Amino acid sequence: MKIYVDNAATTKMSRAAVEAMLPYMSEIYGNPSSLHSDGQAAAEALYSARERIAAVLGCTAKEITFTSGGSESDTQAIITAAKLGESKGKKHIISTAFEHHAVLHTLEALEKQGFEITLLDIDEYGLITAEQVKNALREDTCLVTVMFANNEIGTIQPIGEIGAVCRAAGVLFHTDAVQAVGHLNINVIEQNIDILSLSAHKFHGPKGAGVLYARKGIALQNVIFGGAQERGKRAGTENIPAIMGMAKALEDSAANISANSEKLIKMRNRLINGLSEIPHSILNGDREKRLPGNVNFCFEGIEGESLLLLLDDKGIAASSGSACTSGALDPSHVLLALGRPHEIAHGSLRLSLSVENTDEEIEYIITAVKEVVEYLRSMSPVWRDLVSGKKEFVIK
Amino acid sequence: MKIYVDNAATTKMSRAAVEAMLPYMSEIYGNPSSLHSDGQAAAEALYSARERIAAVLGCTAKEITFTSGGSESDTQAIITAAKLGESKGKKHIISTAFEHHAVLHTLEALEKQGFEITLLDIDEYGLITAEQVKNALREDTCLVTVMFANNEIGTIQPIGEIGAVCRAAGVLFHTDAVQAVGHLNINVIEQNIDILSLSAHKFHGPKGAGVLYARKGIALQNVIFGGAQERGKRAGTENIPAIMGMAKALEDSAANISANSEKLIKMRNRLINGLSEIPHSILNGDREKRLPGNVNFCFEGIEGESLLLLLDDKGIAASSGSACTSGALDPSHVLLALGRPHEIAHGSLRLSLSVENTDEEIEYIITAVKEVVEYLRSMSPVWRDLVSGKKEFVIK
Repeated sequence: MKIYVDNAATTKMSRAAVEAMLPYMSEIYGNPSSLHSDGQAAAEALYSARERIAAVLGCTAKEITFTSGGSESDTQAIITAAKLGESKGKKHIISTAFEHHAVLHTLEALEKQGFEITLLDIDEYGLITAEQVKNALREDTCLVTVMFANNEIGTIQPIGEIGAVCRAAGVLFHTDAVQAVGHLNINVIEQNIDILSLSAHKFHGPKGAGVLYARKGIALQNVIFGGAQERGKRAGTENIPAIMGMAKALEDSAANISANSEKLIKMRNRLINGLSEIPHSILNGDREKRLPGNVNFCFEGIEGESLLLLLDDKGIAASSGSACTSGALDPSHVLLALGRPHEIAHGSLRLSLSVENTDEEIEYIITAVKEVVEYLRSMSPVWRDLVSGKKEFVIK
Repeated sequence: MKIYVDNAATTKMSRAAVEAMLPYMSEIYGNPSSLHSDGQAAAEALYSARERIAAVLGCTAKEITFTSGGSESDTQAIITAAKLGESKGKKHIISTAFEHHAVLHTLEALEKQGFEITLLDIDEYGLITAEQVKNALREDTCLVTVMFANNEIGTIQPIGEIGAVCRAAGVLFHTDAVQAVGHLNINVIEQNIDILSLSAHKFHGPKGAGVLYARKGIALQNVIFGGAQERGKRAGTENIPAIMGMAKALEDSAANISANSEKLIKMRNRLINGLSEIPHSILNGDREKRLPGNVNFCFEGIEGESLLLLLDDKGIAASSGSACTSGALDPSHVLLALGRPHEIAHGSLRLSLSVENTDEEIEYIITAVKEVVEYLRSMSPVWRDLVSGKKEFVIK
């Protein structure tokens, strides 16, 4: 049995997306900036991909900028808003403590340049409210940036409501929708989103391709300088094969969101119910307001890393949290923001499903996790102290 | 007949490079930051690609940072050197007027931040000397950035000598080697290069993949913020398929440089000799110190755009200069830097060959260009004035 349940880290490319890329590698391989027919064929592909992606997001093609992925989009989004703000003397930014590092580290860089950052607290389920955002707004706020859905615990924020608060206040609103696009219905108009980041490899598209949506009138600030590609706002020869793969994967995901979501939620809920049977375990994130494919648990008395390695031996590819920080010894900043103590945050397990997973696999995972958790606890001195009463359980 | 001679704009991916990518799209598709076997298989691929690319450049794997392409590498190289310089109170940068816009526009952005930029003049063949660099060095110079080979006129600069001057002065030396890598022998140690940019799609590798080489000890400045990938210096899930394609294409190009170069130079020289027969035409760039596959001419009395479109009708995909600025009405900044007057710079033609071109194609191109130039001149009022003596020829 070989089971991949780390789809929040990255996904297997769909066959359709691979096939959409191939012709642009060695047949229609021209540079879209070239005047000749080979170039113009590439330019037409680029044009159509932009139109198709815009249609899915509910914006116009001109509002789409192609980037190399989610981190680049997040960086450019935030730097753009910051520079626009700075030009008006506004240097305050509102965000949350559980954002992706692409957002948090860009904010840290801005902090060194004199920007003031307010990170909103999340509740015990990982949610913030539009009210919190409203209360944090100041005269000098130039940007609110809140993740659409969290990459670790899957929590879905009230993006439309937050967007409305920002719109009313005339403050730019950016959302890192890397985990949400392709999995949730998104419409930038209805949800009052000014700037949005997405990454193709999170919805069975290629790695190295992302989009930055910026509402008409928002003058993007370059992160990468050079040629006049992307209206001069993102230099570098356009990665047409990847863009075509991304457009195909996005269209396919968007067309199947309801069906996929239904299937995923069924599997997810079965997984949550099954793993909840493990004593002294706790689900991280909200039970309902979470990504269809996200499951995230803490198990008391064990180390996440050992759990992952033993599950890997059983053919299960899972994660303890964000792949971007794995290998780091620090526990997840998301789980800490959720209020989990260090020793509990260390024992986390994220299972992120795709529609390629099966009910049979879910049952196998439940059995495997139960076995592995029991085994690890049997060897854990911490667990012995907990059972003997020397230490007190955090998760009752 | 369908002839692609715009390889400086972008190349057709080699079959080997495509095949090197495919397994990493839907088989070994894990995130290299993931702890499980799927992630570790991707991490091993990443490790091997880094080793292989380092071997070609003559550096160590740790000195290689993967980026999304040449423009990103150039941007990060220059911003890195600028920030390092700024921290020591050094805010002077030396470059040339004929750099790629990825360099020039990054320098312009730095100029707005108080950096002082010296752009060295090139001679009539597009060359600068190490002596010029030496004379321009100041106490507060923090960076010298000179293109290895020019993308429009193919001129190859004395990089090793310039590097030696910089090394002796303790000033960082960056070279945009996007047009050179895969086509010329490069060794960063022998040529005293501190930082180098390359782009895979210029040597039959994939679009969306580049490398930034930075000598050990040079602390890169982030352009893209986020996760801990690339030692924390370039965030974003690594584009393993493209990196594998790039490694393969680079190895293949490097292994065949001598043979390819010999074949290209033969075709190039035949093309130069053939086109030189056109009256009032001039070769742009140096006759010998030029890229093996680069031909660039100015033809008096005609417009480059019409020339390209008529050649396209005859099945020839060529360019007037850089693809990155095509569509722009301004004549090439490289040709202007070379001293060509506006009206001459407008009538330029770049033919950039690959080893896939044939002698037969070269003969076809010579005939076609002669025909098209003659045809365009027959309709050109400027040409009529030149022939009648109302105006004086610039190109004798």
